[in-house]
Amino acid sequence: VRQAPIGVFDSGVGGLTVLKALAAELPNEHFVYLGDTARLPYGTKSPETVARYALQAAEALSEYGVKCLVIACNTASSVGLPAIRAHICGVPIIGVIEPGAEAACAASKSGHIAVIATEGTVRGGAYQEAILRLRSGARVIAQPTQLFVALAEEGLHQGPIADSIAQHYLEPLFGAALDSASSRGLSASPGPAVSRDALTPDTLVLGCTHFPMLAAAIRAAIGPDIKIVDSAATTAKAVRETLERESLTRLAPPVPSPIRFLATDSVERFARIGSHFLERPIHAEEVELVDL
Amino acid sequence: VRQAPIGVFDSGVGGLTVLKALAAELPNEHFVYLGDTARLPYGTKSPETVARYALQAAEALSEYGVKCLVIACNTASSVGLPAIRAHICGVPIIGVIEPGAEAACAASKSGHIAVIATEGTVRGGAYQEAILRLRSGARVIAQPTQLFVALAEEGLHQGPIADSIAQHYLEPLFGAALDSASSRGLSASPGPAVSRDALTPDTLVLGCTHFPMLAAAIRAAIGPDIKIVDSAATTAKAVRETLERESLTRLAPPVPSPIRFLATDSVERFARIGSHFLERPIHAEEVELVDL
Repeated sequence: VRQAPIGVFDSGVGGLTVLKALAAELPNEHFVYLGDTARLPYGTKSPETVARYALQAAEALSEYGVKCLVIACNTASSVGLPAIRAHICGVPIIGVIEPGAEAACAASKSGHIAVIATEGTVRGGAYQEAILRLRSGARVIAQPTQLFVALAEEGLHQGPIADSIAQHYLEPLFGAALDSASSRGLSASPGPAVSRDALTPDTLVLGCTHFPMLAAAIRAAIGPDIKIVDSAATTAKAVRETLERESLTRLAPPVPSPIRFLATDSVERFARIGSHFLERPIHAEEVELVDL
Repeated sequence: VRQAPIGVFDSGVGGLTVLKALAAELPNEHFVYLGDTARLPYGTKSPETVARYALQAAEALSEYGVKCLVIACNTASSVGLPAIRAHICGVPIIGVIEPGAEAACAASKSGHIAVIATEGTVRGGAYQEAILRLRSGARVIAQPTQLFVALAEEGLHQGPIADSIAQHYLEPLFGAALDSASSRGLSASPGPAVSRDALTPDTLVLGCTHFPMLAAAIRAAIGPDIKIVDSAATTAKAVRETLERESLTRLAPPVPSPIRFLATDSVERFARIGSHFLERPIHAEEVELVDL
């Protein structure tokens, strides 16, 4: 079992940011990555539909003999995790919401936390609930930032268009912090800045696996003082801890190609766009077309 | 049969721009509109997958006793029309590509035509082929403008973000026309302007049902001199002509609610976003959830 691969599932290519973090955190492991590209995006679909799709994908991955299942999709984690845990037994199942919520609670001083995500994740309320479970006095605001997904997939994650869209979504959330950050340079009076800061989140959770691609534009829009929590890195840490606790870490170094790619549609598009997300070339021949 | 409804099919809400044009062109008719919102977008999926989905949707619509089928989706028209025509007999089937190509050939003086569409429509090449069939000397350039879809669905079809994205996509296509339009104001020398004009399309086809929503931003990006062909209006005209030719027009005025809405996912989202596209309120209670 220790030598078995880790199954990683996402609606498309976004989860490759999680896979990248996993491969860095666990360099000995093998992976099977499944992108349900035929049915993406999950972020605008109803909870029932997403839960059904996520369960089908998780079942498909279990047939590859995986020792651990990572739901590397915020929307699927948000609404599909209970159904997946109820139907798939014997392997640890790790979503991206819990690790992200934990990291946000650890990072935030004020307990005022902003979450940006897809429509489906925001509406499902899973981040809000997970954060409040860990820190009952927290104040969470969640904002759908749907266009970030299309921007990342179009390769327009940097530049003036990304900057203006990031401003459009984030200035309403962080306006006070931006004002106080710039006024600190101009004035020594801390009075009004403190009271406005209290209304402004000090931590921003990137609640969609596409969003780390837009980190530069997001940072520019919120200024230097807000902490950014990227659930890819926190999920990779949670997976490592789980494998260690359950004595499931792989012992030998991996084979030369330790990642197997599966997609439900257009292997060419998966390879082309996925290469940006994984930050290494994926060739269409490496991607297997599967039917769920 | 004359009293039967017209079936209109799209991957989501974009086809509502076609439905709006149809309802204006054919005020006596009844309509059944099916948006395959569970499986959208079609624009980034493989031709085989889109053709299969489109055929399922067309079969579902035929069960409503429609007298005519309108494929109000460029991607589905582009790759699904032959399969739909082969499987569904006895009713006229009208896509959006042919009427758009005809209107473009009629509008263009130079025969140099630009088409903007989804990735799937551009890659399928159906507009390019349809235009060249009608006008063999035409020069067609096709450009995927994938972000326009997300912008329209987010309700960001006007304003600085829409303008900058329209410029990003369209300036490379129409740069020469824009230069010459502005230089005409400054200089009387027509020499270089003419030779650059010859390289620039004089007509732009909006090859996706979402794009009429962005007409203002598109017009601003290409300047006043380029003709814009909107396939919604041209398709509505083609449907009217077909019904008249086959004696299928409805004789009596319509019932008070002549449109029936079907969606394969999230009737709430369909109603909310669809209202912008149809430019009249749609209530979630009006939308029936169907399974294909």
